[in-house]
Amino acid sequence: MSMKTLSVNLGERSYPIYIGENLLQQASLITQHTPSQQLLIVTNETIAPLYLDTVLQTLSHCNCKTVILPDGEQYKNLNTLNLIYDTLLENRFDRQCTLIALGGGVIGDMTGFAAATYQRGVRFIQIPTTLLAQVDSSVGGKTGVNHPLGKNMIGAFHQPQCVIADTTTLSTLENRQLSAGIAEVIKYGLIRDTQFLHWLTNNIPALLNRTPQSLAYAIERSCQNKAEVVAADEREAGERALLNLGHTFGHAIEAGMGYGTWLHGEAVATGMVLAADLSRRHHWISDEQYQDIKTLIENANLPVKAPDTLSTEQFMTLMSVDKKVKQGKINLVLLKSLGEAIVSHDYDPTLLQQTLQMAKQQTLEHKST
Amino acid sequence: MSMKTLSVNLGERSYPIYIGENLLQQASLITQHTPSQQLLIVTNETIAPLYLDTVLQTLSHCNCKTVILPDGEQYKNLNTLNLIYDTLLENRFDRQCTLIALGGGVIGDMTGFAAATYQRGVRFIQIPTTLLAQVDSSVGGKTGVNHPLGKNMIGAFHQPQCVIADTTTLSTLENRQLSAGIAEVIKYGLIRDTQFLHWLTNNIPALLNRTPQSLAYAIERSCQNKAEVVAADEREAGERALLNLGHTFGHAIEAGMGYGTWLHGEAVATGMVLAADLSRRHHWISDEQYQDIKTLIENANLPVKAPDTLSTEQFMTLMSVDKKVKQGKINLVLLKSLGEAIVSHDYDPTLLQQTLQMAKQQTLEHKST
Repeated sequence: MSMKTLSVNLGERSYPIYIGENLLQQASLITQHTPSQQLLIVTNETIAPLYLDTVLQTLSHCNCKTVILPDGEQYKNLNTLNLIYDTLLENRFDRQCTLIALGGGVIGDMTGFAAATYQRGVRFIQIPTTLLAQVDSSVGGKTGVNHPLGKNMIGAFHQPQCVIADTTTLSTLENRQLSAGIAEVIKYGLIRDTQFLHWLTNNIPALLNRTPQSLAYAIERSCQNKAEVVAADEREAGERALLNLGHTFGHAIEAGMGYGTWLHGEAVATGMVLAADLSRRHHWISDEQYQDIKTLIENANLPVKAPDTLSTEQFMTLMSVDKKVKQGKINLVLLKSLGEAIVSHDYDPTLLQQTLQMAKQQTLEHKST
Repeated sequence: MSMKTLSVNLGERSYPIYIGENLLQQASLITQHTPSQQLLIVTNETIAPLYLDTVLQTLSHCNCKTVILPDGEQYKNLNTLNLIYDTLLENRFDRQCTLIALGGGVIGDMTGFAAATYQRGVRFIQIPTTLLAQVDSSVGGKTGVNHPLGKNMIGAFHQPQCVIADTTTLSTLENRQLSAGIAEVIKYGLIRDTQFLHWLTNNIPALLNRTPQSLAYAIERSCQNKAEVVAADEREAGERALLNLGHTFGHAIEAGMGYGTWLHGEAVATGMVLAADLSRRHHWISDEQYQDIKTLIENANLPVKAPDTLSTEQFMTLMSVDKKVKQGKINLVLLKSLGEAIVSHDYDPTLLQQTLQMAKQQTLEHKST
């Protein structure tokens, strides 16, 4: 299987996405994007034993430093970020240095934010090692950390120099993490690519079995969708917000349960079911379509019910700190039809209450009324 | 005295600088730049008792929250920054909110960086209340905080919506702070405006006496110089670096003595004397010009000697973490002639050693050789 190269078209901030097997061994993919030998690899305790040596070997001719962070969303905060700054400064890294994010979405977001803010901005490269990071978070330049009062509340837009998606790294991914990535893959189908959604309906088992061809296709098609959306709306003034399908619900679940309890992709999966449920209650999609979405997500071994311990009131409070709030109204991404998402605050609040109240059951209760 | 309006021309990021008396009372200067009623005033314990009530009264029709930080460069760090994030999130401020920096350079830098990074970027307004902030730090969009290993090492470029320089606020400024501001005023003369330098040579007493006309003229002329430089080179790829005359030496003094011991302007003043000394040793400026510069800075009640406790070795080490380092070489801003600065690493390191060794005396030692 050969390497595919996609492009994120953002004028002078354009960059390539490389997708293929055994890319970690190809030094030139990295070094063609670095003006100096000063490289800092940022990774975590899970990924370091698996892939750090490979990357260090690939870059053995460079001045390569390493910082290994604890693993998990609960460490995505300003304190952990400071460990990156410390390493950069202790090694006297200057403005020509490049940071390399080797890991999942958390590593990518933190490394990107450190790069956005170190000496008012230096270069960085994404080497995502989870499916979720390869299909979503590594592309598009959203970087940041969490605050106890809300996810990704502190951050910046900062585009990488390139994204290197080595599909070989997915072989070591836990099943739970694989499913979490599939959640974001399904998202692209739901919001803008019905053909892909149809393909997914038939290929979830192949993805769960990690068939190389199906994984490569899912990554490529996801990145293509993401790249198109980001190119059209880099700073999320409009269309890009559609990529947040399920995320406002999902962020509330993540924050309410404590970051790291639910995986981001799991929370988004349930969030997409809730968004579909609210869309169904407005008769924008049919009950059958809602049921198909739920089944697809369930088949990917993802949760479709909100946690029992989260009350409707808590849910509403947590949703209202989300960045999608504009002058007090919660904006939600909903499905106007299958394959067509909209951002709206023009929904019936009573129906939102119903969605949240039923979120723990997720039965089609109104069928029996 | 009427209000003057200058403009910083940066395309879609252009903004006005208002200079005049009693501007804090004019609500429209602020509200014409704010899309929502959500305003957060960030100030400190020194400025709050003096001007916070005035601004709150001016904005009494808005949803105005306040955060009061401890005063001083030693608090310009990630921990203090977090107090701003906390207040924003506790009050559920959304992406349409505006932060208002009411204070000196530290408040401006931290508020700007909070605005650059809250929800990946919100608006902010500068209301500088020190001479230094009015003539320099409030204009140009450099924001950030310090790290124990270096000043302004964590930051972003983020332009304000406007700068409101109310000259009335200078009446409460301590003499030491006033002189620190004059240091940056002198800087513009030295690097690019000999006519202004000549004016300053005759008007330092008027500035120290706070004659309104002379202060207003110095602010206007300084802001005009700064606006021109920033418009030509927003992200410091070239010319803008000239504004750092004296800063690499100065940052080393500030860090070496512990942030807050020397005022930034004081350290820059001594730094400019050292830069002039190194320029003189290369015969780019004459001994007489060097002496005139030193006298001008001394007349402004500013220090012209480096602190006794800082060894030459410490000085070099501290200078080498400065952002102006590029691939290991310390870039310095030097005077190629009076009124013409250059950025260079093409200086004689032996002469730099001599400058640092003599920095504590600052006598024209080679006159006696």
